[in-house]
Amino acid sequence: MLKYKYVLDPWSIIENKFDSSKMIDSESIFSLGNGKIGQRGNFEEDFSNNKTIGNYISGIYFRDKTKVGWWKKGYPDYFAKMVNCPNWNKIRITINKELLDLNKCEILFYHRELNMKEGWCERKALITTNNSIKIEIQSKKFISLKRENIGAINYKIKVFDNNIKVKVLPCIDINIRNNDSNWNEPFVTTINSISKNNLGIVNSSIINSEFEISTFFKTFYSINNKKIDANYLESNDKNLIGCSSEFLLNKNDELTLFKVGGYVNSNDSEKKYFNDIIKKECDNALKAGFIDLCKENIEEWNKIWEDSDIIINGDVKSQQAIRFNIFQLNQTFNGNDPNLNIGPKGFTGEKYGGVTYWDTEAYCVPFYLGTKHSDVAKNLLNQRYNQLENAIKNAEKIGLNHGAALYPMVTVNGEECHNEWEITFEEIHRNAAIAQAIKKYIIFTDDFKFLENKGIKILIAISRFWEQRVNFSSLLNKYVILGVTGPNEYENNIDNNWYTNYSAKWCLEYTIYQLSEIAKRSNRSNEFLYKENGLSRDEISSWKKIIENIHLPYSKELNVFIQNDGFLNKDLKPINNIPQNQRPINQNWSWDRILRSPYIKQADVLQGFYFFEDDFSKTELVSNFKFYEQFTVHESSLSACIHSILASRINNIDKAYDYYVRASRLDLDDYNKEIKQGLHITSMGGSWMSIVEGFAGLRIKNDKIYFDTKIPKKWESYSFKVNIKNRKIEIKIDQKSTSAKLISGDKINLTINDTNTILNK
Amino acid sequence: MLKYKYVLDPWSIIENKFDSSKMIDSESIFSLGNGKIGQRGNFEEDFSNNKTIGNYISGIYFRDKTKVGWWKKGYPDYFAKMVNCPNWNKIRITINKELLDLNKCEILFYHRELNMKEGWCERKALITTNNSIKIEIQSKKFISLKRENIGAINYKIKVFDNNIKVKVLPCIDINIRNNDSNWNEPFVTTINSISKNNLGIVNSSIINSEFEISTFFKTFYSINNKKIDANYLESNDKNLIGCSSEFLLNKNDELTLFKVGGYVNSNDSEKKYFNDIIKKECDNALKAGFIDLCKENIEEWNKIWEDSDIIINGDVKSQQAIRFNIFQLNQTFNGNDPNLNIGPKGFTGEKYGGVTYWDTEAYCVPFYLGTKHSDVAKNLLNQRYNQLENAIKNAEKIGLNHGAALYPMVTVNGEECHNEWEITFEEIHRNAAIAQAIKKYIIFTDDFKFLENKGIKILIAISRFWEQRVNFSSLLNKYVILGVTGPNEYENNIDNNWYTNYSAKWCLEYTIYQLSEIAKRSNRSNEFLYKENGLSRDEISSWKKIIENIHLPYSKELNVFIQNDGFLNKDLKPINNIPQNQRPINQNWSWDRILRSPYIKQADVLQGFYFFEDDFSKTELVSNFKFYEQFTVHESSLSACIHSILASRINNIDKAYDYYVRASRLDLDDYNKEIKQGLHITSMGGSWMSIVEGFAGLRIKNDKIYFDTKIPKKWESYSFKVNIKNRKIEIKIDQKSTSAKLISGDKINLTINDTNTILNK
Repeated sequence: MLKYKYVLDPWSIIENKFDSSKMIDSESIFSLGNGKIGQRGNFEEDFSNNKTIGNYISGIYFRDKTKVGWWKKGYPDYFAKMVNCPNWNKIRITINKELLDLNKCEILFYHRELNMKEGWCERKALITTNNSIKIEIQSKKFISLKRENIGAINYKIKVFDNNIKVKVLPCIDINIRNNDSNWNEPFVTTINSISKNNLGIVNSSIINSEFEISTFFKTFYSINNKKIDANYLESNDKNLIGCSSEFLLNKNDELTLFKVGGYVNSNDSEKKYFNDIIKKECDNALKAGFIDLCKENIEEWNKIWEDSDIIINGDVKSQQAIRFNIFQLNQTFNGNDPNLNIGPKGFTGEKYGGVTYWDTEAYCVPFYLGTKHSDVAKNLLNQRYNQLENAIKNAEKIGLNHGAALYPMVTVNGEECHNEWEITFEEIHRNAAIAQAIKKYIIFTDDFKFLENKGIKILIAISRFWEQRVNFSSLLNKYVILGVTGPNEYENNIDNNWYTNYSAKWCLEYTIYQLSEIAKRSNRSNEFLYKENGLSRDEISSWKKIIENIHLPYSKELNVFIQNDGFLNKDLKPINNIPQNQRPINQNWSWDRILRSPYIKQADVLQGFYFFEDDFSKTELVSNFKFYEQFTVHESSLSACIHSILASRINNIDKAYDYYVRASRLDLDDYNKEIKQGLHITSMGGSWMSIVEGFAGLRIKNDKIYFDTKIPKKWESYSFKVNIKNRKIEIKIDQKSTSAKLISGDKINLTINDTNTILNK
Repeated sequence: MLKYKYVLDPWSIIENKFDSSKMIDSESIFSLGNGKIGQRGNFEEDFSNNKTIGNYISGIYFRDKTKVGWWKKGYPDYFAKMVNCPNWNKIRITINKELLDLNKCEILFYHRELNMKEGWCERKALITTNNSIKIEIQSKKFISLKRENIGAINYKIKVFDNNIKVKVLPCIDINIRNNDSNWNEPFVTTINSISKNNLGIVNSSIINSEFEISTFFKTFYSINNKKIDANYLESNDKNLIGCSSEFLLNKNDELTLFKVGGYVNSNDSEKKYFNDIIKKECDNALKAGFIDLCKENIEEWNKIWEDSDIIINGDVKSQQAIRFNIFQLNQTFNGNDPNLNIGPKGFTGEKYGGVTYWDTEAYCVPFYLGTKHSDVAKNLLNQRYNQLENAIKNAEKIGLNHGAALYPMVTVNGEECHNEWEITFEEIHRNAAIAQAIKKYIIFTDDFKFLENKGIKILIAISRFWEQRVNFSSLLNKYVILGVTGPNEYENNIDNNWYTNYSAKWCLEYTIYQLSEIAKRSNRSNEFLYKENGLSRDEISSWKKIIENIHLPYSKELNVFIQNDGFLNKDLKPINNIPQNQRPINQNWSWDRILRSPYIKQADVLQGFYFFEDDFSKTELVSNFKFYEQFTVHESSLSACIHSILASRINNIDKAYDYYVRASRLDLDDYNKEIKQGLHITSMGGSWMSIVEGFAGLRIKNDKIYFDTKIPKKWESYSFKVNIKNRKIEIKIDQKSTSAKLISGDKINLTINDTNTILNK
């Protein structure tokens, strides 16, 4: 791994080195998207080395038949997977009859820049073809934030000799398959296609679904900035839908292809309107031209940065990283469509199927709460509310009843998709993350209406789950939760995972608390409210019994909570005992060896200290942090951010900084050697949390807002805006002081570093 | 479930009822085999209802690419699966142009008998076809014990009207696929075929392997017992290799087809000799004729029964069952070929791939030791010796070294085939079963040469495995074994499974003991022997430390060993709390629910009381038996027999009898509702153990042989022969007394019911 593969720059990701076999890694980094559609950073022209062509539409998925060696009762029939769509970006280029393929040319100069401030990606290359023809290509593109269905490419070819025949075939490549297909089946089938002069349309249906999509593009050409009329010849490759045009160029001529393209889909519009929409989108975009379209898009990105930028002075590495994270989060999901969610890899790869995990609630909701209108987070929670019935069915599958809900580990519509028993059936702590997101949403927004109408119903169903999922151990005289997997997935089917047990207790407490708060606010009695929600006195008192008597493993000797029963029987050698060539252990060790080792994939007890910080003292945090950190290998993207936040809390800012760098630069520096699979989008919310909740120490407790700010040594200053309780507040921290400013909303009282401040606009 | 689906008969399994949709169940019951080749009890003629056509050759397997939802490091690339071969049994029959298909006829009379004494199966049916033609068919067949490559069918058709056109196509059906193929791939491909008059040959290769097989048949016809020359017309169905002949029959005419067929394979002979062998086999068999071939086969079965029959008087249900078990074990494996082993379903089904599990050592070796020449058991152990190198590689995969061996859970050649991490990597107690089989082999045979040359090497490698697989828990100040699955597969990734920990301790002790015994016998010092086997003093003392300090979970309060850490935290409700409609739980509950329940699939702590009985008192056995029995659902075929033996030991003969019936009639009465998948062959050895080691109480301790005999109330008497230390001893037990007789071998001293007896021939 190069120390910094990409140039350190505050606003851009730049690669200047052309390493043909590693372009598949950069494809992930240079991905583009607008929350609705997105794509990996593929070259437009042919490329014969490692690559993963990837174009995706959020909400368009295939139900991929489950693959499993040994079926267990309750496994889901399918895993919903985001569909890799026909590729509208494709431009086949032939130079004097030689196919342009950067893998087969001499590269004299190469430069690619992802400009995050303005939301475009540009690639320049000066090359000599096999036929010894020197040309320069330049491709600039973006996916439009304002025009959700389209992207635009400006592709230039400059020649340096006379009489160069350049043939260009802008097209849709329909020879695309999902790489994660379980059974090597196609997910998409072509219904029909149109290829007429400068227009290409492919209508496709997603197999075994109601989904239909239409992929389209339209182009025009200019030479030396003068628009020209071309002759069009239909492609004779049945997989490439489009028409080619041939041009004879002379010395210093520059041919430009302006290509607009994208997707419409049946979630957004009726199929019968597809062609009308395409016509309108293309005509409007072509009329505007690339430059104006790009400007329009820059303005949209300006608005996003206005609200969500974090400015770090003095450490370009940190600055670049946080912007990359914020940029990717906004490319993946922007809250415009209440039905979409956040796949762990966004539009940058197929791993995890592009569908919803607990990542959304635990790592993304805070970012969207802090930087967007509160409707965005509400819509994410509404999705869970709408899926409550499916979550209840899911709990029935594991033998529970009476309205107990187990939210799925992986889902697109509330039905479980995952099929490893140790995860599917046992990683039940996900239920608590949803309750945590509700809590966070309420304290950020004071939206009690959501709580009363929907949130409380989710909380009750989750509490019912915990009530039935515990059992009483006569041996311990305590309630226990057996057979779970905690956030640390390097332990399976364990008993009494401290984090899970504590989460269960907290969910029950929080539900009872909110029931009585709702009662208070509405001047009704608790009893009335219980009745209204179908809760019996017995149920509540059973919850209380569990709250008081749940087993929470603890070692007096070590003064730490024990991750799970039996953890202390392990061979407790810190991670520096693992030879470097055996890291990451999940790529080197058999599963049993990982399981019986003390090594922890991601924050587990410490995830509890993050969520439930108010319940524990700093001393307890220090002791648990110190104990568990020595065993934690951070082989999940979700680990470093939590460690950074906790290190901030215990005033170990150097450590917090190291973890922040690891969290935020995970993909840019490819810590886990898997970047070609795509970016770790959901964990990027954790980078934001590392700064806002970590260094800046934002806490909201009931009505009060606190900042307990710190600053890493390398940073001169940092600043950000955050939405809290219908206000937008700007915080600036330098090495000496912190200042806060109310950007919008009513006067508010804050506590900054133990000092009360009243903010006025 | 009918109480007794098959007629109770001491020597035969008889079905008189034709239930078309259930014929797939009877196919399993009426399976035939000779240890080399075998087949399910399929109808020869076409049959359009549920069926599983199955013909198999022991040792001929396909490497089926592993199917797994989520790959874990160390998973094997393939699962070896016995190949479902082209079907030589097929006989297509047409009556006046109507295809004979019992599913489409009116069945006036139906009778099928599996005669276990004589080793044949006969089926008779009187039927009316759709064209209202009444015919009688009679098919008698067997697989030859003496002629390992062949089986024979005598198929008769009798008509009751004049001018009935009967067309017969004896053929090989090549349209056969394995039902357990992971990827729906064919395992076999046809190289070429010959179809010439009364001869059919299909040469096939097993895909991606060196294996080739040849399927063949030859026939002749007679009418009313007079051999006739037929006209042959080659089949126009490309899947049916053979020639048809047409006959015009008149009232009471009986047409007989004598068909000899079977397989030669490249494990047994070079491919170039295939045709010569086939010619010889067919010509000899046709010359002998069906009746003489059958007689010859009856003689072979007589010899088997002479050595291995168990005669039970007074309880035909028990008598029939034990003979069915002994018969099937002999059909599956007879020890003639030192390279073959015992698949859990023999030739009767494809589940478990037909390859080797710990079942062989734990449940089958005792039967073969007791009823066959000691070479048979030795050959089974030799296979494990020959696979030691692969077992060492297998241990390396989970991070162990220095010659530690982990025998695979499932294997055909020493390489692991199984791919559930909780089994593959964690069900490590299988190693101990191999050491137990060595122990049993040595005490039954006194073959110290095997011990010195091979057995001790296996024992050392297994001990090295345990030494490295334990770790020291500072908390407990004990050695622990974390992350295992015990014999009770309804718990996964548990810590300190008592059975596994005790087995580890025992293996280490037994290895040290046998090292010193070898030293004693050869007048060498222990040190000399350690050195010779590459063992250091440190290694031995490390073993001793583990023996003395291994954690063996125990509850003083309950006076039982605890199945594993945490077991007593479960909701300990006995099995009568499970509603009947939720049994078996593995067909009704999600996996997590099973795991966190206290329900036990098969003997676990009690398996330890079986293997290590001498280490515990009767009181301890009573207490543990009582405690664990209440949670045991016996959803493994390997459970009831162990419970029967232990119930005998604690003098609860009624219970022992019930478990014996359950063990021995598991398939005949289809307790687990899965008979269509095939018979539970390996557990049948457990039925034999239930009688010989259970009721008859056979124990061999060092040089001494004991019988502690009991008899179930319903039995008037029972008797059997058993091979011990180069003698054959016959034991007869009636309600009042036990007598023993030396059938062959030298004088020997026995203890029967605490009385010493010297047996002379």
